[in-house]
Amino acid sequence: MAAKLTDAERATLATTLPHWRMAEGRDAIVRDFKFIDFNAAWGFMSRVALLAEKQDHHPEWSNVYNRVQVLLTTHDAKGLSARDIALAHAIDAVAGS
Amino acid sequence: MAAKLTDAERATLATTLPHWRMAEGRDAIVRDFKFIDFNAAWGFMSRVALLAEKQDHHPEWSNVYNRVQVLLTTHDAKGLSARDIALAHAIDAVAGS
Repeated sequence: MAAKLTDAERATLATTLPHWRMAEGRDAIVRDFKFIDFNAAWGFMSRVALLAEKQDHHPEWSNVYNRVQVLLTTHDAKGLSARDIALAHAIDAVAGS
Repeated sequence: MAAKLTDAERATLATTLPHWRMAEGRDAIVRDFKFIDFNAAWGFMSRVALLAEKQDHHPEWSNVYNRVQVLLTTHDAKGLSARDIALAHAIDAVAGS
């Protein structure tokens, strides 16, 4: 069972994951992505789907044409855990940022 | 440019697309899907992505683990058009219903 991030761990997020923000009203982080078209957005999502399956930790996400919103939280922990941070870093690497 | 569905066309939807409902506050149709796991949900989404790209008409959709919500509307028409109905039928075929 994953443990919620400590305050000290949370304090580093703005530096280590600068493209992510806290979700409104939830203990979760969110990042918005914009691509050139659906093909590119779907390519990104496909890579993230494989990462998620490999880490056995899945995003809550939505797609509208060239836009993708990814929200990460850990249901077991009822909030942000190290698993979200690991997946966020892997997603950032796929996104090339 | 796609034309909005007429009232007569809308009247048939409950019969021809019984698994879809009108979206709240938008001229759009929505269907919720539940699968056994993320693998199955992603397989479904991958098939729909190919359909959407082929029809050059894309859903607004979200996924949380084994659940997928698909919303169809036509931005050009500022509402439901025949393109949404065609895509909904194709998605129903993929979903096996």
